[in-house]
Amino acid sequence: MENLPRQKPRVVIVGAGFGGLEAAKKLACKDVHVTVIDRTNHHLFQPLLYQVATAALSPADIAAPIRGILSKCENMEVILAELCSVDVNAKKVKLSDGAELDYDFLVLATGARHSYFGHDEWEKLAPGLKSLEDAIEVRRRLLMAFEYAERITDEAARRAAMTFVIIGGGPTGVEMAGAIAEIARHTLAKDFCHIDPSQARVILVEGDPRLLATFPEDLSASALKQLVDLGVEVRTGARATDLTETGVQVGDEFIPCRVKIWAAGNNASFVGKTLGVPIDQVGRVMVNDDLTIPGHPEVQVIGDLANFSHQTGQPLPGVSPVAMQQGRLAARNILAMIDGHKPQRFYYWDKGNMATIGRHKAVADLKLVHLSGLPAWLAWLFVHLIFLVGFRNRLLVLFQWAWAYLTFNAGARLITRNFQSETRPPA
Amino acid sequence: MENLPRQKPRVVIVGAGFGGLEAAKKLACKDVHVTVIDRTNHHLFQPLLYQVATAALSPADIAAPIRGILSKCENMEVILAELCSVDVNAKKVKLSDGAELDYDFLVLATGARHSYFGHDEWEKLAPGLKSLEDAIEVRRRLLMAFEYAERITDEAARRAAMTFVIIGGGPTGVEMAGAIAEIARHTLAKDFCHIDPSQARVILVEGDPRLLATFPEDLSASALKQLVDLGVEVRTGARATDLTETGVQVGDEFIPCRVKIWAAGNNASFVGKTLGVPIDQVGRVMVNDDLTIPGHPEVQVIGDLANFSHQTGQPLPGVSPVAMQQGRLAARNILAMIDGHKPQRFYYWDKGNMATIGRHKAVADLKLVHLSGLPAWLAWLFVHLIFLVGFRNRLLVLFQWAWAYLTFNAGARLITRNFQSETRPPA
Repeated sequence: MENLPRQKPRVVIVGAGFGGLEAAKKLACKDVHVTVIDRTNHHLFQPLLYQVATAALSPADIAAPIRGILSKCENMEVILAELCSVDVNAKKVKLSDGAELDYDFLVLATGARHSYFGHDEWEKLAPGLKSLEDAIEVRRRLLMAFEYAERITDEAARRAAMTFVIIGGGPTGVEMAGAIAEIARHTLAKDFCHIDPSQARVILVEGDPRLLATFPEDLSASALKQLVDLGVEVRTGARATDLTETGVQVGDEFIPCRVKIWAAGNNASFVGKTLGVPIDQVGRVMVNDDLTIPGHPEVQVIGDLANFSHQTGQPLPGVSPVAMQQGRLAARNILAMIDGHKPQRFYYWDKGNMATIGRHKAVADLKLVHLSGLPAWLAWLFVHLIFLVGFRNRLLVLFQWAWAYLTFNAGARLITRNFQSETRPPA
Repeated sequence: MENLPRQKPRVVIVGAGFGGLEAAKKLACKDVHVTVIDRTNHHLFQPLLYQVATAALSPADIAAPIRGILSKCENMEVILAELCSVDVNAKKVKLSDGAELDYDFLVLATGARHSYFGHDEWEKLAPGLKSLEDAIEVRRRLLMAFEYAERITDEAARRAAMTFVIIGGGPTGVEMAGAIAEIARHTLAKDFCHIDPSQARVILVEGDPRLLATFPEDLSASALKQLVDLGVEVRTGARATDLTETGVQVGDEFIPCRVKIWAAGNNASFVGKTLGVPIDQVGRVMVNDDLTIPGHPEVQVIGDLANFSHQTGQPLPGVSPVAMQQGRLAARNILAMIDGHKPQRFYYWDKGNMATIGRHKAVADLKLVHLSGLPAWLAWLFVHLIFLVGFRNRLLVLFQWAWAYLTFNAGARLITRNFQSETRPPA
């Protein structure tokens, strides 16, 4: 790698999710040299990933090339590579291809992956939803399950193929459960000869006594009711204790099912461990109130990788507004420090929380008001369109939603990759 | 598999490309039972596949779920499976999952794959463009080549990474070459720090003395000029005699290049060989003038799998209008035979030929007139939108084209799947 001239302070941002991208945007065209490192070439609008998984949207609708977003300013360099380790004392990051980069300021925003609570072997059985690849795989499994059910005559096997278990009743789990129920009852309803997709069972399993634990109780209750109206079977206070190819053990009951989806837990990226500072149980870095790490004011950690407990005593939730607000402050603090000022502390401005369940079905906690059903759904639609990155994507998504709304038809029902082993009925 | 009641004549259609789908549509809601077998769940608009490969469109824009297209009528069954063999004497098809289906009438429309002229080992080095998976792989290689060039300092390696060789100067090769040149010169032009994508070399290699051999000579000459205007290096009368990881041997010259794309030859599907009737050198079935095979009036072969030479003495070209017209006749002939009439012979109504090269650049042979440049491009745009399957797809594609046209920005620049081994500079 050539190292660029060092006149300008050099900022390295690792991760171009909501936090990292916001930080980079704030530093664009400023008097610093910025290097953004990400292991994919796209910024992903993760809150809509479940719509790719359920065939409502295409991958490109919710992903934008990082280079395209950041190419307007000359102080911006984008590197497609994976972070290997950070040496905070030498002020260097090492990439997995062997390259090393020096920095004057570092922003770590590498996020989180699913956590299977020590059962890593469950990942293959029950994929989660973090990347486009995850979503395409879930979409493939969903659609293949119906294809398989159509061709098999054994009643028990057919029933298992048409049973979908979602583990985890947070926003992702609730959204997946609602979307699968809708696709089965509407989109696919008339597509098959030997099965009736509307008879599919969708089971949502949550260990807590209620769904959407981070929402107010009245909205949890409303979400439950809206899901039940859609025909989803909700099991709260129930834990998945074992997963196998053929099903899920939930408490005393073994539920035979082909497709399982994991929406239960997250672990922060491994990067936190390499910094030599305190981390919490799920790997998040315990940051100072200005997002820096102890002893290193030039290193800031933001988003799902950070445990910021200075505001409420509890870690802030792993949602995009937290990451975006932290990204913006990280950038501002870097510019302040360059000018010889002290970094500011972080305050999260919580504008609320939303989850969608289906057509005209959602919950929205807007702090001053709690919305359910159609008003919540319209609010959700509006907010998600506003925040979709890139004008083109917003229009494309709007168009596809309008189309799906009018026709009950999910357009992106593609099965790609090899399916051979899956259509074959068991010997 | 359950076998449905046999009151109605049973038609099996294998392949839901342009030919098979047309046949199925014509038999929808008629007094026959139709089973459509395809190994993917989607009908693919192959003529626009190169736009997925060059990141202008998303896979779902040019593919529609077969079930969705055919689900309106109750006489239609769709099976996602691969054909294994045909027993024309027993009137059975065998699927690769072991299932067997009886038929009264069979329409074979299984198409063609690339042919590497005996060098099957070249397939991995130079993917072709027949399926969505092919297109996604080519898109990944194209975009990764620029990422790789950005990070490497060795000048020769960088130059090889930014050299793209397309082998075959038919419509697909011409379209790919033009589209790659445009994406390098416009879309990616400002995205990188260490390379100038507009310096990319695009080389189109064609063994014949001219491009677009099936077009009139004036249009071949025009296509050549339009490609050269875009900066494409065209080598006609030149054959690729060897392909390696590091480059392509063209005549006496070895061209170091990372990305090679195959657009040179086709072989018909293996199915033709299993019928026990004469086939030609590339595996196409020599059909009677009514598209049936010798001795079996209940078996019709259409599209790229058929060699129909009764009209001009030459086999009809492997283009979608031939397949669609044959599909419609096959369906009509089945209904005629059920009613005790003789099948009609096939006449191809040739409305012309088009290939697009880039923005305002195309050639169109409309028989009465030959168009080049802007008028040809507008004609191409119009025809391709009209024929895109499904109203939703048409609008989506129109919107993305309009967007790309106004902004010079290709939206679907996604690299999915593992890239690790490719970004690593050589040791």
